[in-house]
Amino acid sequence: MSTNTIRYYEEQQCSNQWRSFLGAFSAEFASKGELSDLRAFMHQLGRTMARGFHVADGSSLQALEACMNQVWSEMNWGWVELVEEADALVVAHHASPLKIAFGEHSLDWSPALLEGVYAQWFDGLGMDKSLRLVQRAGVFEEGQLFVFDLKKQSEEPSYFTRR
Amino acid sequence: MSTNTIRYYEEQQCSNQWRSFLGAFSAEFASKGELSDLRAFMHQLGRTMARGFHVADGSSLQALEACMNQVWSEMNWGWVELVEEADALVVAHHASPLKIAFGEHSLDWSPALLEGVYAQWFDGLGMDKSLRLVQRAGVFEEGQLFVFDLKKQSEEPSYFTRR
Amino acid sequence: MSTNTIRYYEEQQCSNQWRSFLGAFSAEFASKGELSDLRAFMHQLGRTMARGFHVADGSSLQALEACMNQVWSEMNWGWVELVEEADALVVAHHASPLKIAFGEHSLDWSPALLEGVYAQWFDGLGMDKSLRLVQRAGVFEEGQLFVFDLKKQSEEPSYFTRR
Amino acid sequence: MSTNTIRYYEEQQCSNQWRSFLGAFSAEFASKGELSDLRAFMHQLGRTMARGFHVADGSSLQALEACMNQVWSEMNWGWVELVEEADALVVAHHASPLKIAFGEHSLDWSPALLEGVYAQWFDGLGMDKSLRLVQRAGVFEEGQLFVFDLKKQSEEPSYFTRR
Repeated sequence: MSTNTIRYYEEQQCSNQWRSFLGAFSAEFASKGELSDLRAFMHQLGRTMARGFHVADGSSLQALEACMNQVWSEMNWGWVELVEEADALVVAHHASPLKIAFGEHSLDWSPALLEGVYAQWFDGLGMDKSLRLVQRAGVFEEGQLFVFDLKKQSEEPSYFTRR
Repeated sequence: MSTNTIRYYEEQQCSNQWRSFLGAFSAEFASKGELSDLRAFMHQLGRTMARGFHVADGSSLQALEACMNQVWSEMNWGWVELVEEADALVVAHHASPLKIAFGEHSLDWSPALLEGVYAQWFDGLGMDKSLRLVQRAGVFEEGQLFVFDLKKQSEEPSYFTRR
Repeated sequence: MSTNTIRYYEEQQCSNQWRSFLGAFSAEFASKGELSDLRAFMHQLGRTMARGFHVADGSSLQALEACMNQVWSEMNWGWVELVEEADALVVAHHASPLKIAFGEHSLDWSPALLEGVYAQWFDGLGMDKSLRLVQRAGVFEEGQLFVFDLKKQSEEPSYFTRR
Repeated sequence: MSTNTIRYYEEQQCSNQWRSFLGAFSAEFASKGELSDLRAFMHQLGRTMARGFHVADGSSLQALEACMNQVWSEMNWGWVELVEEADALVVAHHASPLKIAFGEHSLDWSPALLEGVYAQWFDGLGMDKSLRLVQRAGVFEEGQLFVFDLKKQSEEPSYFTRR
């Protein structure tokens, strides 16, 4: 699969109706605040978005993943993999439209939107209060993959400190 | 044509990909500021959006209208009529997705986005500096029509004072 | 609501991805057969389409209507009203994309697609074998409304005789 | 880029509005004729489609490719590369929605649609009558790439003989 085809699909995925608005929003928004404020606002938007969807089947990791992917597929926001690791539940979100919608320069803050969505969904499922969902630093697969770890909150602040 | 069909088309027009995000944005955003600030921010976003499109044929009112409708049609943002009246050029924007995207409660501030777009386009065409584009107060056709007047700036402040 | 806005919504509803193909199909297809053959083929396609959807809640007319509208809404094919009359169950399908997809000249045969879908769904629900779904002759609301009657098969042939 | 992401994009590319219809069409259509007839009909549809688009800038290979990609991008039908080889002009069409729309079983006949489109476009540009566009046999990149050669018609019949 050529890189051109990937780029073609990425470009086409983002709805033409809102691309111009979202690009303008990104430019205005990013010029106005600190990185931590941008992330906090996007995280909050994500939590508000999450409440509008019914993600309630936590009977198994597979059921939960399927439930989330139902939401993402209907919105064409990509797909998620939930992977259990020794000390964390890893949430790997692929093929989201964030990079195209908000621009490459937004990759530091726009994924906080997904962080907020997942955090809210896990809260809604009655997640242990000592756990916290935090985005893993770094850009993976050229902004086509965002990784979040749900784990015991460490003492040290995360790379993306917020609030 | 039944009201149900109009409602059906309105609902379907707004891209499913961003509807949840835009609704969350609207809720967070509207809770944060004064009406005049909300309008000023939307107006600014509109100006930024406008710069991304090529609306340059001001050879006639019809040519300009066609040029604008080319942009709106590709984005599925409705359509515009430009009408010359005695003391103003009237810009009537029909069938925009704003009401569904940002919600009915947003009808006081979300149309400032269109105001910003048109203001920027007229500026780009070298509009007389004494003219100003101002949204006409009131909700027309249940939020399916927004009307803007381009005319000499009056002494009295507009209903929607901004900046 | 102006006629222009209705026309705008109608045009935009039909997916740009397949509009050219469907227009070409309509032109080639219509040139090849008798009206009754065209209707029979579309009816058959409709039955095949119907089998791909789960329309199974016949517990009440409202439940059935909601179930069908769930399918239509996800596909953006308009909406249906089921109305009980003295001697028939009337199926009124509004705001389908058929006229734009297949052209105005297709209005004699393209709605047989919907006839096939509904006929299959009623069959799947165990409809009385003496009943038959037949499209009511005539163009309603400029091709935005198609009406089908589910009733005892009459002796006389329908306007649109098929098979 | 994982295979899952490619599959995700492929699935999402095909418009939900017509996918069910096109799948039903494919099933009915394929059951009715010989492979050569299916290809001839699709080729003819492609020629009819092509006439609806303005592809007229043959000033250079790059200009022509850009002109074609403008059409394909607006329809979300993928993208094309034109490559000059010793004895042929190679037309490589990537990322079309044909496989998802018509199904994997259609890969023998559905690409004749693209063959018809390109053949018509080259004819419209005044292509030398001794040249002929023929699809190269074989499935490339799992049905994501179709290759056509524009070259002097050979004596031997092509793999996909038609008419």
